[in-house]
Parts: sequence; structure tokens; C-alpha cells
Amino acid sequence: MGLGIGLIGSGYMGKCHAMAWNSVATVFGDVERPRLVALADATEELASRHAKAFAFDRGTGNWRDLVADPDIDVISIAAPNQFHAEMAIAALEAGKHVWCEKPMATSLEDATRMRDAAQASGKTAILGYNYIQNPMMRQASRLIAEGEIGTVNHIRLEMDEDYMADPDEAFYWKSAATSGYGALDDFAVHPLSLLTVLHGRITSVVADMAKPYEDRPAAGGGRRAVENHDISQALFRTENGASGVLMVNRSAWGRKGRIAVQIFGSEGSILFDQERMNELQVFTRKDRSDTQGYRTLLAAPAHPPYQQFIPAPGHGLGFNELKVIECRELLRLIDGDKAAHVIDFDTGLEIERIVHATAQSAERRSWVEL
Amino acid sequence: MGLGIGLIGSGYMGKCHAMAWNSVATVFGDVERPRLVALADATEELASRHAKAFAFDRGTGNWRDLVADPDIDVISIAAPNQFHAEMAIAALEAGKHVWCEKPMATSLEDATRMRDAAQASGKTAILGYNYIQNPMMRQASRLIAEGEIGTVNHIRLEMDEDYMADPDEAFYWKSAATSGYGALDDFAVHPLSLLTVLHGRITSVVADMAKPYEDRPAAGGGRRAVENHDISQALFRTENGASGVLMVNRSAWGRKGRIAVQIFGSEGSILFDQERMNELQVFTRKDRSDTQGYRTLLAAPAHPPYQQFIPAPGHGLGFNELKVIECRELLRLIDGDKAAHVIDFDTGLEIERIVHATAQSAERRSWVEL
Amino acid sequence: MGLGIGLIGSGYMGKCHAMAWNSVATVFGDVERPRLVALADATEELASRHAKAFAFDRGTGNWRDLVADPDIDVISIAAPNQFHAEMAIAALEAGKHVWCEKPMATSLEDATRMRDAAQASGKTAILGYNYIQNPMMRQASRLIAEGEIGTVNHIRLEMDEDYMADPDEAFYWKSAATSGYGALDDFAVHPLSLLTVLHGRITSVVADMAKPYEDRPAAGGGRRAVENHDISQALFRTENGASGVLMVNRSAWGRKGRIAVQIFGSEGSILFDQERMNELQVFTRKDRSDTQGYRTLLAAPAHPPYQQFIPAPGHGLGFNELKVIECRELLRLIDGDKAAHVIDFDTGLEIERIVHATAQSAERRSWVEL
Amino acid sequence: MGLGIGLIGSGYMGKCHAMAWNSVATVFGDVERPRLVALADATEELASRHAKAFAFDRGTGNWRDLVADPDIDVISIAAPNQFHAEMAIAALEAGKHVWCEKPMATSLEDATRMRDAAQASGKTAILGYNYIQNPMMRQASRLIAEGEIGTVNHIRLEMDEDYMADPDEAFYWKSAATSGYGALDDFAVHPLSLLTVLHGRITSVVADMAKPYEDRPAAGGGRRAVENHDISQALFRTENGASGVLMVNRSAWGRKGRIAVQIFGSEGSILFDQERMNELQVFTRKDRSDTQGYRTLLAAPAHPPYQQFIPAPGHGLGFNELKVIECRELLRLIDGDKAAHVIDFDTGLEIERIVHATAQSAERRSWVEL
Repeated sequence: MGLGIGLIGSGYMGKCHAMAWNSVATVFGDVERPRLVALADATEELASRHAKAFAFDRGTGNWRDLVADPDIDVISIAAPNQFHAEMAIAALEAGKHVWCEKPMATSLEDATRMRDAAQASGKTAILGYNYIQNPMMRQASRLIAEGEIGTVNHIRLEMDEDYMADPDEAFYWKSAATSGYGALDDFAVHPLSLLTVLHGRITSVVADMAKPYEDRPAAGGGRRAVENHDISQALFRTENGASGVLMVNRSAWGRKGRIAVQIFGSEGSILFDQERMNELQVFTRKDRSDTQGYRTLLAAPAHPPYQQFIPAPGHGLGFNELKVIECRELLRLIDGDKAAHVIDFDTGLEIERIVHATAQSAERRSWVEL
Repeated sequence: MGLGIGLIGSGYMGKCHAMAWNSVATVFGDVERPRLVALADATEELASRHAKAFAFDRGTGNWRDLVADPDIDVISIAAPNQFHAEMAIAALEAGKHVWCEKPMATSLEDATRMRDAAQASGKTAILGYNYIQNPMMRQASRLIAEGEIGTVNHIRLEMDEDYMADPDEAFYWKSAATSGYGALDDFAVHPLSLLTVLHGRITSVVADMAKPYEDRPAAGGGRRAVENHDISQALFRTENGASGVLMVNRSAWGRKGRIAVQIFGSEGSILFDQERMNELQVFTRKDRSDTQGYRTLLAAPAHPPYQQFIPAPGHGLGFNELKVIECRELLRLIDGDKAAHVIDFDTGLEIERIVHATAQSAERRSWVEL
Repeated sequence: MGLGIGLIGSGYMGKCHAMAWNSVATVFGDVERPRLVALADATEELASRHAKAFAFDRGTGNWRDLVADPDIDVISIAAPNQFHAEMAIAALEAGKHVWCEKPMATSLEDATRMRDAAQASGKTAILGYNYIQNPMMRQASRLIAEGEIGTVNHIRLEMDEDYMADPDEAFYWKSAATSGYGALDDFAVHPLSLLTVLHGRITSVVADMAKPYEDRPAAGGGRRAVENHDISQALFRTENGASGVLMVNRSAWGRKGRIAVQIFGSEGSILFDQERMNELQVFTRKDRSDTQGYRTLLAAPAHPPYQQFIPAPGHGLGFNELKVIECRELLRLIDGDKAAHVIDFDTGLEIERIVHATAQSAERRSWVEL
Repeated sequence: MGLGIGLIGSGYMGKCHAMAWNSVATVFGDVERPRLVALADATEELASRHAKAFAFDRGTGNWRDLVADPDIDVISIAAPNQFHAEMAIAALEAGKHVWCEKPMATSLEDATRMRDAAQASGKTAILGYNYIQNPMMRQASRLIAEGEIGTVNHIRLEMDEDYMADPDEAFYWKSAATSGYGALDDFAVHPLSLLTVLHGRITSVVADMAKPYEDRPAAGGGRRAVENHDISQALFRTENGASGVLMVNRSAWGRKGRIAVQIFGSEGSILFDQERMNELQVFTRKDRSDTQGYRTLLAAPAHPPYQQFIPAPGHGLGFNELKVIECRELLRLIDGDKAAHVIDFDTGLEIERIVHATAQSAERRSWVEL
């Protein structure tokens, strides 16, 4: 009988988890079908309605019911960021495995406590960094590991969307200091997760954070000062000797889901953009001078686990399917396979440290060593 | 309680149907969760294994068990093409709704009998033309209907893959005359389904079919003549006064899942390529001369039903999710909603007629009127 | 001392010739600088003004002055198409070399007389098919000749612009029957010139020609019926066993200078689009399955004669520079180098034959053998 | 009678100047044809050969001959960077106008002396920042000035090539400290010139410079330490309140002539890449949600002075033609038109200051105010 699953939160990412739990066994065919035991949300009504919609056996307005339920083995946490620490720690202490959405927590202290709780529990605890699951990203990792582009010496990472780009939109919680640094928390963790699996750790950073709009219309009339930064950029060095740049912007008109990666090495280079998530561009100097150029690889069965979804090349995976892959990797790790391709709480904490060091650098206007 | 589902076939498209039946309620949230009653395949063993993997209650080596099962309301047919007619007719006569993969049948006679059976049954019978479900194709339809590109006067359709491109690959059933005309059956129905929903009917056609390789290595040594055509192209005229070109090639090295559509009208034009299925390019002459150009639309919540999958723009749907949309449309039609966006057996038969007329034109080397 | 040059016509292509004659020695460095002797145009005033602007020694309102001038060795013909035959024949009979803009003539008879005059004269006579001079097209030829894509078996050619796309534009001479078939004369010769150098001759064709707009506003009020076809398409077979499609449209909103070429072979494929004239896409099956994909080659010194213009790769040639290359090839041919890469009047006549056969096919609605 | 021209240097950029001087009158038609008086190079032989090839009346091994020649009005300086200051100052003091290639000089002191000499002379003195002449860049400027993308708040600039990317290439002068900072001098001035015309001045900067290869094979055997930096990146703020990032890399495998510009504003954004120099991408939030997307503008007569080169849209200008436009702007400025679109020595000096401040920031590892 498959693992019992509890899901906390049923919004954007909650639904994404639900779809993954629903699909993972059908797609992969080699895992026990999980039992969708219970879904928790802010109210009984909401929880019950979504439990039904997402095929969970029951809903509850109290997430602690899930933690207490002996029939539940894994808890998916897709609640607002400020609750991640409390929920994850409670779940781990109750002996549950945890699959927590990013970012890990809203403070470094909380993230550290989460990591400690995971270590103490001996349970599996991972974070929802789904972009690392893209078969094209895994292909990039494989090519780098095989030496296809030689020694990596330079990296550029961009993540941009435009949901905060409208200057006429009223001030809401996203612009409040309590929600964090701004684009840095919201976005930077994603390219940093890619950096982690593709290359290695950041060892020093100098950053800048900027406000495209100093204030916004206030709900009650007048204007209210924006308290965090929609734009952030940083120069960095890595443990493996590369230099790089990290750029994030949530007010970038025209960008919808851009995560652009440029990786340069001594023998070639690799380019990726999440807006064309089924493509990878690879340049190698081995090609002769008159026929060299970036090759555009299209996602295909040759790029596992694409073949679990579609046996034909070039047909295209979607964003949601990355979560299904992540779910499969979680199950693999729970099953004891240390080779599972995930960001666990240890690595997640390192990502958080980089985020905080970056913010610190911007505040101090100086380089920060990690 | 949701509809009872039977699935015949569990290969490429069978799994795709299974994933759709598994996901449709979770994604859309407004339909009863289907009950996955039984799966039939060539053997009991295969059927039982896949039933388990795909969350069906039971498996059977005899597809007629599904037709006879009173607990089943809808039968998904994803068996080899030559069985479509027999299965669909049996299912319809038994009072089941039918969701049959394309192409409809291997002969026009069979396709006609299927259409007749559907009409006689009063049941819902649709075909698996999933590309019409792409939110970007539906956006294209909407723009054309709104007059954004004026009166459509010219259309170019291409569908190309390279799975038959290797001249060293041995002769197998795909190259036998018994499997049909070749690329024309395999591919042309897809762009024709798009033409049907975007524009209208073809009224005359002149075609050519070609063999890139005259023979192939035979299984038992020596070489065997290829009996059908990997390449086909046709000029056509439509009931709405447009001229057009249809090109299909299953030996097109480098093409993996290309379905390229170019639609020109008196006020603008629209471009699409399935290899970048989350994009649509739109040109309108209304833009002033120095700022006009193709706009690249990225799939977004503004393009229903994308928002049912992802609330954020630009994140990307996948091929499999088109089947989930198709499944939802099927349920809508079963529910009596005539506005459901599907290719039913009536329209499917028209597509088959075009395919056969096209082949006839190539054989006769002359224009054929429809 | 360099060759003496006479130029007839100083509009779009006349100026393009003038720029080429001005630049060819500077760019290539290995030819005698041509002497720009005289420019003829419709009036003395126009001719004198443009002679000065384009650095010709003198202008004349009578093109026959150029033919009679013993100081002139080469005559560039960039006058309206209906005068090509008369001018070219006069020039050849006077012992001049001729560089005549495309299309060759407005009737097959005229084109034949031009070819005969060229043969009789023993002089060099070429046509202005500048797109074949693009270093990326020459790279494509080289790759095909080297067997990079194996035996070519399928070709698709498109040429589209939108200068006739506006239905509200008044009827002018381009829509009159006297100006020829329409898009077929205007455009088809360009992709056909590419086909000639990349692959070989067309041996049979079936075509269709269409009018996006039946009539247009007439100059004097009311509406006037359009007399030729803005859209044309044809299926064809070649002497080398390939099938293909030729599509041209001068009413294609959004297309500005598109000449799209797709060439498929047994080992790979090549793609090109003149709107990105410094790029060539090449796919070869030799790459392993997980890293194969179209390579985007950027024009570079490795693609002669790019290096004569710019010593650095990826900086970009322009449309006008193709004419400079063509000019250099003309000089090479005059100099007796039979390997010069040009379309002479013999080959030009073949292209004209294909155009007329295509029109004939459309009129007869049947295949035509060449 | 046109201005008398002297050209110093006949390599890559010398030839580019020569082509521009040869073409400018023919292309624009509204300027006196310049008289190509003399060309100077390292030796008499080289100078004479190139004078002949480039249509200059005479060659000389002594550049001071040009400065002394009363028949020369304008001196083009395309000699190695270390000679720019001496040559430009001598020319200006002799009453010549000066057109000097970038970078201005190899030290800030020299650049300052050049600026002073220009001011004292009252002559026209400009720098060869040809990328600002691209009609698409001028279109970008126009759109920004018109408010199409609102208030600019974020800018990303990249310039990358791969001519230093091969780790096996022997040490040569480009890697010596005497040749400057590395990529920063070589490249950064180009995107900075674009920033100057598109937006405004940089007021503060923090930078990093990196070596992809610590050493290279030495000519005489063994290895030699690389003395400057092939990679450089900087965060910056501008006088107009924008934040930005500048990235340059001359060891970026696969990049051939990339100059990527991303400009974000409160109402839209603009993208450009010199590798596709005839395209500009524009996003405006004014488009409705379901049809918004980046529009790809193709260079056209609507983007002056494109129409001086080609009367038809989408046909493509080349890199060399930017120099012809620059030449026309120089002539306009000499003629007293203060609206000429150029980088003069005043603005050029500001660009140099930014370069040096950037290097200083990298050395000090701290922000530097300008």
C-alpha cells in the first residue's frame, strides 16, 4: 500500500502538489500509488471543497490534524512562507517526511531550525525547487559533468517576471518589509537552486537592490512607500573558480516566466531559458569553424525522465510535470536512494544563506564572504 | 458519482488517456471525478499491469468485456488504427460514449460506418485531435473570429517529424501498404483538424506523395521496397475562398514535433509552431509602420483554459495537458453542452474524406474536387 | 586601368548596382577599380543628378548612348523589366558585357532572344540573382556538396512580403496583367535561383495562383478588378529525385523579406531565412541522440567571401553587400574564370521556363512536364 | 568640391573607414563626394598598396605627412590604440577634423588631453562608436524619448565574443598588461556608448574582473601568466535613477558579436542583440492581456536612415553600413549641425572615465562614485 499523503495549502502550489501526487504513479509506473489522505487549508469549507476537487479523502481547517494523523507519511507544505518553519518542524517531529515549497523560511534562523529538525528526525525533507527537475537542466548537468563545455568559468543567471511591473497597482503585502527583501526572496532562490546542481557554491558576493517605484497607491487613498526591492542583482565568485552575475526582477514588463542561464566553459557553453523550457542550447568548440554554432536541443526521450511522459521527441513537457518528477525523486529518497536529485534542507539552508548574504551586501554596499 | 471509464490500449496514447482521466477532475475542479473501471489490452497480464499502474480497477485481455460492462459509460479507444472501427461501433451500439484516437479508421468505408453508428446511437463520439485544444490555438481561433487578421486568404500547414528519416532502419510495418498512405494518414489529419477549427473546409486539392527511400533493409537480409510515402504535399482551396498548402513529412531529419501553421488575412497574420507550443505570433497592420512586427504571445491565464493548470503566465503547458483539456471538452459534450470544442465523428469523417481525396489526387496526378 | 561601366536605371536596384561598382575594388582588393563612365535614366536631369550622386562621370537621358560608348565595357541594366530584352540585346550586340537585373524579361520569347544574343556575342551576360551570393547560401551549397545532409530528397521554398497586402491600396500597374503573372514573376525567380545552385532543375510542376483581393479601389473612383495573382504555390519534382513545394506571396502581412528554404536529405537538413540572412541552421544525424539539434551558424570569415568585408565573425553582412559579391563574381567571369558563381543567361532562361511552366500549370489546372 | 580625407591605418577598422568614405556620397546623395587624398600605414609599401585598393590618391609610411597636408580636411584614425592620442592631438592642432576609432586612448590622461585638444581646436572630433548608428538603436532611442516604455528603471548590457576563448592559444599582446584591462577596454565602451545615447550617465559602479585562464602557452615554451581580464562585470546606478548591470566577456565560447541590451521601464521594455542587428523587440503594457507580447520589429525604411540604403523593409543592413551612417553624421557635424548623432570627444571622455572607475572598483573591491 502506498504512502499516506497530507497536503497543507491548496492555492497555486498546493494544487500543483495535488496534481503531482495524483499523477506520479501513472506517469512512472514503478511506484506504489500514494494514498491522498487529507488536505488542510485555512477553513474547513475551503479544505473540504479542495479535498474533493483534488481527490483527497478528507479536508480539515486545522493543519495540525495532518501532523497528528498516523495514516499520513508525507506532508506537502504549500502554505504561505511565514508558516513553513512551524509546519515543517512539527511534521518532522511527528515523524513525517516533508516536502516543503520554496523559499524555505522567512528568516535564516527559521531555516536553520528546519534543517536541524530534519537532521534530528532522520526523515526525508526536501524543498520544492522544481526547475532543477527539467530534463533539459538535467541534460545540462550531465553535459557539464562529462566535460562537454570544459571547466566552467563564467555564469549568468536571470529571473524575471512582470507581476509587480504595473506602477498603478495598489500597495499590497508583497511590497511590505514583512514579506522579505522582494525579488531576492521571491526569485533568486530559483536560479540559485540551478547553480547548486549545475556548478557549485557561491563564496563571495556583492549586490545591489533597487526599487523601480518608490511608492504605490495606498488602499485607503494617498500613496504608500514601497518597503522592499523589486529588482536585485549581484556579482559573485564560486568555490569552483567561476565568476558570475545573478539578476532578478519582478517588475520586468514583458517577462513572464524567464529564468535565463548562461554557462561558459573552456570548451563550450550552454544556454537555457525557462520560457522555452523544452529547449537547451549547446555550443562546443569541437565543431569545425565553418559549421560551429549553438545547437538547439529539443526535449526528447534521450533526456530522462522525459520518456516517462511522452515516448516521442519534441512534443513538450509543461511546468506542472516538473513537479511530478520532483515527486518521484522525493519518493526515491524516502525509499533510501541517496542519488535522488533533490534540494534537501541542508542544501536549501545554503541557498538561504546566499540570499541573506546578498541582501546584507546590498545593505552594506560591500562584498560579503560566505 | 462520476462516469465509469474503460480504456482500450495502454501504449503511447493509452497512457496519455489514462493520465487525462486521472487529472481532469483535479485540474478543472468542476467535474465529477471519473471512475477508472477497467483497462483492456492485448493480454490479461499486460492489461492487469497497466490497470494497476494507471489506477484502473481491473485489467482484461478482452476489450469486449468493457463494452459489456454496465458500469462503464465512456470508452477510450487507443488501440491500433485497424481496430478503431470495430471497437467504436461495438461500444456505441452498447450505449457507450466513445473517445477514439485519430486517425478515425484505415478506410473511408469504416470511418463512414463509425459516423453512422455514432448518429444511430445518440451517444457522444469524438476523436483525439488534441492539438486543437492548445490554448494558443484557441486564442488564434478567437482572434480570427474577432477579425484581428481580417478575411483569411492564405494558409500554409506543415507537419514534420524524423522517426522514418533513417535510411538504414529496417523495413517495418509502417512502410507497408497495409498501414496506409504513409505520412498522409499519420500526420495530415492533425493540421487538417486545426484547419477545420481555425478556418473551414477544403473544397479542392491537388497532391503529390513521395518516397525519400525506395527500399529499406529487409529483416531477413536483402532489401525490401517501401510501399507507401513518407512525404506528401498538397495545394488546396477552401470553402471560404482561401488558397493553401499542406505539407507533411515523417522523414524530415531535425524535425521532432513540428506542426507549423501560417495564416494570412487582409488585416494581419498568425504563426504557430507546435515545437514551441506555448507561443503564438500575431501581426496586425493596425500597428504604426515603425513599431509593427510579429508579437510573440506566451501562453497565459488570459488564454483559457491555461489558468486551470497554472495561475501565472509564461510557465508553459505540455503536450499531455492538451489531452486533459480534450477530456474536459468530452465531458462537457456528454453533459449536453453543444459548444464543446471537439472534433466529433461527423467532422472527423470530413477530415478522412480530405485525406482520401488527397491520396486520390496524388495517384491520378490531377485536381480532385470535394 | 579598370573596366568602363555604364549603368541604366538609378532606382532601387540601379542604386544597388552603383554601390556595388563603387565598393567592389575596395572590398576585394584584388580587382582593378572600375571606371564609372556613364549613367542613363529616363531624363537628362534625373540621369545627371544620379550620375553625380553615384560617382559616374556623366549622365544621359538616352540609354543607347551607353551602348554606343567605346569607353564602356560593361552595362548594368536596372531599368524596368519590359526594357531588359531590348537593352541587353543591344548591349551584347555592341560587344558589351551585361549585368541584367532579374527577372530576365517579361516573355519567354524575349528571354530566349536574350540568351541567343549572349551566346552569339561571346560576351559575359549574367542576371542579378544576388541571394545566391549570400555566404550562408554558399555554405549551404558546400555542405550539400560534401554530403553533410546526404542525398537531398525534399525541398520547401517560400518567398513572402507584404507590399501588396493592403486591400485599401489603389490599383496600380503591379496589379495589371501587363506586368506579368504577379507574385510568380516578382518572387519565384529568387527561390528558384537558390534551388538551381543548391540542388538542380525542376522537371515537373503543378501549380495554383490565387488573388487575395478580387478588386481594388480605382484611381478614378469605383473599383477595378485585379488582373494577376499576388499568391502562387506549386508542387514540383526535380531531376535529382527530390519532391518539393514553392510558395510565394506578395500580400503576406508581416513578412518583409522572407525567403525561407528548407532542404531535407538522408543524413540531415538545412534551414535558411533571408530575414535572418546571417544565419544558417544545420541538422545532422551524426550527432548523438541526446545532443542533436539544429546548429545555428552565424556568418563568419570561415564562410567566404565574408572575410573580405569583416575579419570578425558574427558581425553581419547586409543585403547590399550581396550585390558587391555578385559584382566580384561578374568580374571573375569576365576575366575568364568559369568557376564564377553566377546565374548566366543560359541558366536564367531555364528559370524563366520554370516560371512560365508554373503559370501554365495553374491555368490548365494540371501537371506540366519541363 | 568635397572634403579631403586622410586615413591612418588600413587594417580591420581602417578598411571599414575606407569603405565608408567611398560609399557615403552614393548612399546619402546629399553630400559632396569626399576626396580620398592619402592613406598612411606602418610602411610605404603597405600604405601604397592599400591606398590603391581603397581608392586613395597616395600612400605614405609617415602619418605626419597627412597632418601636414593642406589638402586634407579630415583625418580618420584607425591605428593601434596606443597611438590615438598622439595622432588625434597632432591632427587637431594642425586644424584637421578627427574621426578616431574607439577606445579613445589607453590612459585617462591621454583621453583628457585629446578632449582638451579638441576643445582648443574648435574642430570636429568624434569617436567610432558605430553601434549607436544602427537604425534599430535609433528607433529604440526614439521610442524611449516618446515614452513608449515609460520611465526607464533597469538596464542590462552584455557584450561577448569568443576570440580569446581558446585556452590552448598562445599568449600574445592582448593578454599583456600593457594592452589594458582586457575585456573592459575592448568591449565595455560599446555598450556604454549605447547607454549614453539611450539613457544617460552612470553615477556609481561596483565591479569584478576575472581570468578564465590563469596562464597560456608561451611563445618560447612553458607557460606565461595572463596579465589582464577576459571577463568583467559591474553593477551600476545612473543619473536618471535606474539600476543596471554591465557584463563583458571576450572568452565566451559561442558568442561571436553579441551586444545584448535589455531596457525596462514603467510602461514596457526593449530588447536588442547585435547578432540580430536588424531586429528590435518591444513590449508595451498598452496591449490587452491576451494579445500582449514582444513585437519583433524588422529594420525598415520607417527607421531612418535605413531607407537611404534600401527602399524595401526587412532586407537587412550590415555592420559596415553602420560606419557609413556614422560617416554621414560626422559630415553633418562638420557642417555645423549640432543635432548630429555622434559620440564626440567630450562624451567619449566620460565613457573612458566610467571604464577606469570600473577597473578601479574591481581592484579596490568596493563601489566607486563617478
